[in-house]
Amino acid sequence: MSKSHRRRVAAGRWQEVDVLEYKQDGSAPFRDVTRQVLFEDPALACQLRYFEVAPNGHTTLERHVHVHAVMIVRGRGECLVGEEIFAVGEHDLVQVPPLTWHQFRAPPDAPLGFLCLVNAERDRPQLPDAEDLAALRSEPERAAFIRV
Amino acid sequence: MSKSHRRRVAAGRWQEVDVLEYKQDGSAPFRDVTRQVLFEDPALACQLRYFEVAPNGHTTLERHVHVHAVMIVRGRGECLVGEEIFAVGEHDLVQVPPLTWHQFRAPPDAPLGFLCLVNAERDRPQLPDAEDLAALRSEPERAAFIRV
Repeated sequence: MSKSHRRRVAAGRWQEVDVLEYKQDGSAPFRDVTRQVLFEDPALACQLRYFEVAPNGHTTLERHVHVHAVMIVRGRGECLVGEEIFAVGEHDLVQVPPLTWHQFRAPPDAPLGFLCLVNAERDRPQLPDAEDLAALRSEPERAAFIRV
Repeated sequence: MSKSHRRRVAAGRWQEVDVLEYKQDGSAPFRDVTRQVLFEDPALACQLRYFEVAPNGHTTLERHVHVHAVMIVRGRGECLVGEEIFAVGEHDLVQVPPLTWHQFRAPPDAPLGFLCLVNAERDRPQLPDAEDLAALRSEPERAAFIRV
């Protein structure tokens, strides 16, 4: 086994990388998402994680001060980032600015797998309260998109 | 144009991402490599770059204190990392520890495109001197692999 090389062993799976729960069950609303930490190193100021949303699944609708730098690497889906909703495909880049509501969704017939780069030191996500949700739902396309 | 979404427009090409010289010409030995900065943000402690080595090309043989976290995202090739030489393919992960000689090569019939994550603040690469090269060439497989 190489120290420096971890092979992909299947789509969205790597040698020596554990498939983890996305979040602790019940801590936040989500559906069918897994999390893997690809790079985490005291010498690196960021972490690179891989999230995979199964068909019909979605990540948590949330925001935080830290930014996300995302590249789609498997399948396709749709994202909400602030005011925008857009379709994403393989190798597309998505940037989530500070304190911006965001959510990723996979279509019925494909997974959505993406790399997500974050600072190693970062704040915890915030969930929307009733007032936030009312504001998010004030726009019909966004009201139809979000899952909570 | 979305602020948060930059689409892949072709293999190894993205909206609003310039294709740059890998290094200033003559500053270090390399062959047929391009560089693109995918994510660079004052709020992010790392940068995510995309390098593409054309068929038969190679990156610079170098080392530095900062670490590299690499994911292959296009084509295939071979890497030297320290004592090891190994073949890499799509979605494989490569980790380059501090002060470790490394070089990436593309085969004759395919490009090698990879993401490379680094700290935003980092030291400059060091090139091998005659003594370093003699040590690197003391092992036949490595002697045959390296390009300087």
